[in-house]
Amino acid sequence: MTHPTARPRLSVAMIGHAFMGAAHSQAWRSAPRFFDLPMDPVMQVVCGRDAARAAEAAERLGWAGSSDDWRSVLERDDVDLVDVCTPGDTHAEIAVAALEAGKHVLCEKPLANTVAEAEQMVAAAERAAAHGVRAMVGFTYRRVPAVALARRLVEQGRIGEVRHVRAQYLQDWIADPEAPLSWRLDRERAGSGALGDIGAHIIDLAQHITGDRIQEVSGQLETFVKERPLAAEHSGLSGTASAERGPVTVDDAAVFIARFAGGALGTFEATRFATGRKNAIRVEVNGSAGSLAFDFEDMNVLELFDATEPAETAGFRRILVTEATHPYVAAWWPAGHGLGYEHAFTHQVVDLVDAIAAGTDPAPGFAEGLQVQRVLAAVETSSDTRAWQTIPA
Amino acid sequence: MTHPTARPRLSVAMIGHAFMGAAHSQAWRSAPRFFDLPMDPVMQVVCGRDAARAAEAAERLGWAGSSDDWRSVLERDDVDLVDVCTPGDTHAEIAVAALEAGKHVLCEKPLANTVAEAEQMVAAAERAAAHGVRAMVGFTYRRVPAVALARRLVEQGRIGEVRHVRAQYLQDWIADPEAPLSWRLDRERAGSGALGDIGAHIIDLAQHITGDRIQEVSGQLETFVKERPLAAEHSGLSGTASAERGPVTVDDAAVFIARFAGGALGTFEATRFATGRKNAIRVEVNGSAGSLAFDFEDMNVLELFDATEPAETAGFRRILVTEATHPYVAAWWPAGHGLGYEHAFTHQVVDLVDAIAAGTDPAPGFAEGLQVQRVLAAVETSSDTRAWQTIPA
Amino acid sequence: MTHPTARPRLSVAMIGHAFMGAAHSQAWRSAPRFFDLPMDPVMQVVCGRDAARAAEAAERLGWAGSSDDWRSVLERDDVDLVDVCTPGDTHAEIAVAALEAGKHVLCEKPLANTVAEAEQMVAAAERAAAHGVRAMVGFTYRRVPAVALARRLVEQGRIGEVRHVRAQYLQDWIADPEAPLSWRLDRERAGSGALGDIGAHIIDLAQHITGDRIQEVSGQLETFVKERPLAAEHSGLSGTASAERGPVTVDDAAVFIARFAGGALGTFEATRFATGRKNAIRVEVNGSAGSLAFDFEDMNVLELFDATEPAETAGFRRILVTEATHPYVAAWWPAGHGLGYEHAFTHQVVDLVDAIAAGTDPAPGFAEGLQVQRVLAAVETSSDTRAWQTIPA
Amino acid sequence: MTHPTARPRLSVAMIGHAFMGAAHSQAWRSAPRFFDLPMDPVMQVVCGRDAARAAEAAERLGWAGSSDDWRSVLERDDVDLVDVCTPGDTHAEIAVAALEAGKHVLCEKPLANTVAEAEQMVAAAERAAAHGVRAMVGFTYRRVPAVALARRLVEQGRIGEVRHVRAQYLQDWIADPEAPLSWRLDRERAGSGALGDIGAHIIDLAQHITGDRIQEVSGQLETFVKERPLAAEHSGLSGTASAERGPVTVDDAAVFIARFAGGALGTFEATRFATGRKNAIRVEVNGSAGSLAFDFEDMNVLELFDATEPAETAGFRRILVTEATHPYVAAWWPAGHGLGYEHAFTHQVVDLVDAIAAGTDPAPGFAEGLQVQRVLAAVETSSDTRAWQTIPA
Repeated sequence: MTHPTARPRLSVAMIGHAFMGAAHSQAWRSAPRFFDLPMDPVMQVVCGRDAARAAEAAERLGWAGSSDDWRSVLERDDVDLVDVCTPGDTHAEIAVAALEAGKHVLCEKPLANTVAEAEQMVAAAERAAAHGVRAMVGFTYRRVPAVALARRLVEQGRIGEVRHVRAQYLQDWIADPEAPLSWRLDRERAGSGALGDIGAHIIDLAQHITGDRIQEVSGQLETFVKERPLAAEHSGLSGTASAERGPVTVDDAAVFIARFAGGALGTFEATRFATGRKNAIRVEVNGSAGSLAFDFEDMNVLELFDATEPAETAGFRRILVTEATHPYVAAWWPAGHGLGYEHAFTHQVVDLVDAIAAGTDPAPGFAEGLQVQRVLAAVETSSDTRAWQTIPA
Repeated sequence: MTHPTARPRLSVAMIGHAFMGAAHSQAWRSAPRFFDLPMDPVMQVVCGRDAARAAEAAERLGWAGSSDDWRSVLERDDVDLVDVCTPGDTHAEIAVAALEAGKHVLCEKPLANTVAEAEQMVAAAERAAAHGVRAMVGFTYRRVPAVALARRLVEQGRIGEVRHVRAQYLQDWIADPEAPLSWRLDRERAGSGALGDIGAHIIDLAQHITGDRIQEVSGQLETFVKERPLAAEHSGLSGTASAERGPVTVDDAAVFIARFAGGALGTFEATRFATGRKNAIRVEVNGSAGSLAFDFEDMNVLELFDATEPAETAGFRRILVTEATHPYVAAWWPAGHGLGYEHAFTHQVVDLVDAIAAGTDPAPGFAEGLQVQRVLAAVETSSDTRAWQTIPA
Repeated sequence: MTHPTARPRLSVAMIGHAFMGAAHSQAWRSAPRFFDLPMDPVMQVVCGRDAARAAEAAERLGWAGSSDDWRSVLERDDVDLVDVCTPGDTHAEIAVAALEAGKHVLCEKPLANTVAEAEQMVAAAERAAAHGVRAMVGFTYRRVPAVALARRLVEQGRIGEVRHVRAQYLQDWIADPEAPLSWRLDRERAGSGALGDIGAHIIDLAQHITGDRIQEVSGQLETFVKERPLAAEHSGLSGTASAERGPVTVDDAAVFIARFAGGALGTFEATRFATGRKNAIRVEVNGSAGSLAFDFEDMNVLELFDATEPAETAGFRRILVTEATHPYVAAWWPAGHGLGYEHAFTHQVVDLVDAIAAGTDPAPGFAEGLQVQRVLAAVETSSDTRAWQTIPA
Repeated sequence: MTHPTARPRLSVAMIGHAFMGAAHSQAWRSAPRFFDLPMDPVMQVVCGRDAARAAEAAERLGWAGSSDDWRSVLERDDVDLVDVCTPGDTHAEIAVAALEAGKHVLCEKPLANTVAEAEQMVAAAERAAAHGVRAMVGFTYRRVPAVALARRLVEQGRIGEVRHVRAQYLQDWIADPEAPLSWRLDRERAGSGALGDIGAHIIDLAQHITGDRIQEVSGQLETFVKERPLAAEHSGLSGTASAERGPVTVDDAAVFIARFAGGALGTFEATRFATGRKNAIRVEVNGSAGSLAFDFEDMNVLELFDATEPAETAGFRRILVTEATHPYVAAWWPAGHGLGYEHAFTHQVVDLVDAIAAGTDPAPGFAEGLQVQRVLAAVETSSDTRAWQTIPA
């Protein structure tokens, strides 16, 4: 680390301060402590709809100030980057405005609630890029070291030509029919249910790891529990159940099969009803020369099968992705000392800050977010029409 | 064990003596040594197309005699049961003839190569049943103790209402494009590829464990490698590659999504291209009260999640299915001493002999085999038509 | 397989017909069906103390005849080999007499209940060997394919110089203080408890896999439950509890640390009180170039870590030991179709018959059994004297 | 969170800024962001022997100031707590001086390099406690949620009477004989090798989880590689190898068996030569009513076997210790989102600050550190004398 004082500041405004806001805050705080960043992130201001709660969040999460008016924040000169951690229905409006105000944007996934919104965001990002303003979408799991290693190994050709992708995102937090309604079960705010919330992640991971694109899909959505108790309070993942009930307007689960552009077959499943599975993001890729398997419930591990080895000693290797040569790991602890969920957010900040300082576009950009949105839309349409849907290139 | 001499004999003729023949032979030999059977199986005669090889098989596999003419065997009075271990294109002809000759039939899966053949077989089985002649199809994996325990737990309501089934049968024995052609890659003889050979098993397992039926499917078949070296010899799983090549006329892999009659969503995948997976028959079922997971590569284990437990100590249990109270296990070894692949064939013999002696229909009967055939056909049609297909009730 | 009629017969008498007798019977029956043996084993006669029970065992286990007088059996010309499956207190007397009668001997482990007995047996085996009579001790787990592969890999130098051995044999069948007494808890008959019964196995496995010898030990034995209900019947692993109680005169558990001749450190633990562990035979060996790990509760798997690989992709490989190139496996099923507990007994028969036909000494011979006995004795003495004990070379 | 401004400040001086210093810094920084602390920790000053490097560490790790003179720091009024992260040879001097200066102390483990030093520290801590000054030793792994849950379940009686403890701390970072010397391989600075560095952790964990004490031990230490290349730089875990070599003066590995006061048997192993094991802290406890198993390489999991369940469905449960009801977890993320290595340091800060604010002694105090030191000394003496050693009560 050399001459920290020489580094320019990067002042951040974060919009939203719930679950995602806490993760992002820890990332902004931790990144410069473990990585040699080219800019100094400053946790300037946090925004929320309620002024008192925003102030409390600023204190708790460690932001210098707070605001209940995100529009005014965009006008501030002491804000360089806007970090959008709100529900999906507000992404487009905030992100487009921020980009137009010349602020870099980090936007949580899914990029938007509709393809149309996502297209507007991409257009805004393209206009902004012409002025050196950057936009990134938060497919954070790409930056789990085991996932980044998987991508690296595919790029190196270690598993050959990809033939199968099986990806699952399994949760169970509403398997109980008495789990209350929340904004995540409300189509107006969340856009979709399991499909957009967690299905988006495995679509992105499958495409990212393979370096390929889903070309067509046939899917089925399902809402197993169609009415739920109203929560006393409607924000967040949980709440206190009441006697009154309201409709669930999003999917509980989505399954689909897919064809990738390169010819691989895919099976996908996103559900909040996989009893006993808490956050099981599983991706297995089978190629002509080997296979890779990942499960977020054992997040510091990547399994690799190398088919070029003699059958006598070939087997899936449990790679503990905690070596200094593994992506992102050298900054942290010695081998065998695992990382946790929020570390991927720190890595996201690192890569974003590096890109901004280097004057390059961070990945995944909004165009990648739009493409995922198109896959989501195709799955939903396919479920409605009972027909295969092609994703526009 | 009481008065063995009082037990009637059950003389068996086995048609076919390759991989399946060896497994069935060991089952007929072992069953009476570990289980108290109501009848004494007699390994009377083994049939093959080539007289010399059949004689050699009789000697090696322990059958009293051999024949190269299965039709003449059906006329023998000293044959009570015909065990059909041939490729699928001959199942219908042999099984129907055997039933008409008044012989009980155990027929390997898939029941036939076409729905039409399977329907003829069911009709023959129904006619035969009127005369006390029994027919069973060899969905042997039902009788792996861990699978039988899974079925028992679902029946007991331990996992509640079933919402998700994810089933995979993953192999990799032809992932190498230079693996030679065999009868299993020839549509004329095998009927289909991964779909019928191994997909049939997971369809049966998924329906058996849940006690439910697949109602509609949307699927995709794929032949990744369309030409292969001709084997020096065309029978069996392997052979020596030659310079000449021939077409692969069956699918290498099949994926499909499904809706069960009871509302559950299913994802299915059968492939011979899952590099590193050797015989990974995986079935996971998520219900409202719990979940079950099985993987044949760890065949003595069933995983159970019980959602009625406090979250503090809930977790997937690794049940080692080797306790005396587990299905079939009391006949074998003390706890912790696992069984192997062929034990399920022994259990199949036990259940079949018990049913014959009791004068009841063994399960799965030919009607269940036909229903699986209909699912297979629907997947194939769906892949051709790119549309969902409903399976006739 | 050629000219089976040309093969000489090998007539077997089995002494004892409980748990071990059943496993040995299945091995004698199965070996010639899967392996091309140079001799034809004949299951001639089974002996037991009670004539009626021996006759029943002959019928059930598939032996031609039965006897309640093992001495008379040794005089029969139609007996070539004596298979000793009795409790340890009778091994020496039967085995020595059999060898002196010119019969080959397969003797269950531990070789004897005392070092003195084992020395007599070795002397008898040496005298017999001079006349071409062979003796083998039944450390059967060596012939689990995963264990045999472990030995092969160490021999090939794949893990380099051995530094650590950690071996555990964990069971829990008497963890319940109300589990009744059986002959296995009676010092007179069993010699010792967990130490001799299951500790003997991990001592043998550790030495066999490493190709090294334990040189000195410091250990501790323990009897957690000192009195138990008398079983209605005293033979076998279980029985019906009665109100009366008797003393447990053997150890429930034994732990010891060890130094190998080659310098490696060992930790060993044998217990019947590891609640939840049913037959967990675990051996891990760490060498300068790699490591191996085995657990019998997942018996078709060997784990291998290869330290010569780049750290980026190094990891313990889960080798599914079901490939045709793996020890013993080609005789059985295709890849991925696992074997069970009793298959190792079949392999033992194969290796023994091969040695007899070849006129060579089978391994492990009685001398190896004696050496294990000396380690067992040293552990016991060490526990009594509270001092390290050296094992005579 | 209420009235943060009402909270008193707790100003911290950290001595040492290598690996442990980084972990502690992140803990001091993160604790108040996720937990509602009764005091506000202030990262006041970091000390190191070299002024420039200490200043760089302050900048990088986020401390307000730096110093190269820990004694002067103890005199500062704006320091309330001294966090000792130096090698073991300086623990006693710094900690005693800090306590005498009226500063609370958090001291890394092992408490000291000798029992005599540890006794002085306990005496100092007792004197300080009389004035409300607190001392804690950093057995951080106690605060991994899965470990804390294990302790809770033992306290609740879930596994009954403890009979077996098997504990291993397996690393491999110096398995390569060319790995260079570091202060950790120098007896003068580190006190001992694997035994004190990592063996101390499993001793503490075994005693903490069981709530019992090790009473006597028989052990063996070993230095497999007796000379190593000198590192270009001698501090830290790694360095560049040079041609010159120096002696390794500590143990590479230590094994011992133990008797607990409550009668349980223990087997322990600490090694830096377990090739392929990176930070495998494994503790398994078998009790009369159940068992627990933990492995830090899968740190968010605790395995539980409940022997009170019917055998049919009993099995080791893989509890994902990420539920809000699990220790420390509610402060972090939703279920299934695992924590990493450094989180346990954050929990340590939380518990320490809570104790200081409450005016109670934090656990583990120095007396517990001394007791572990006595076990370490007994193991070492036992290895020298080749005799069992009793640990003073």
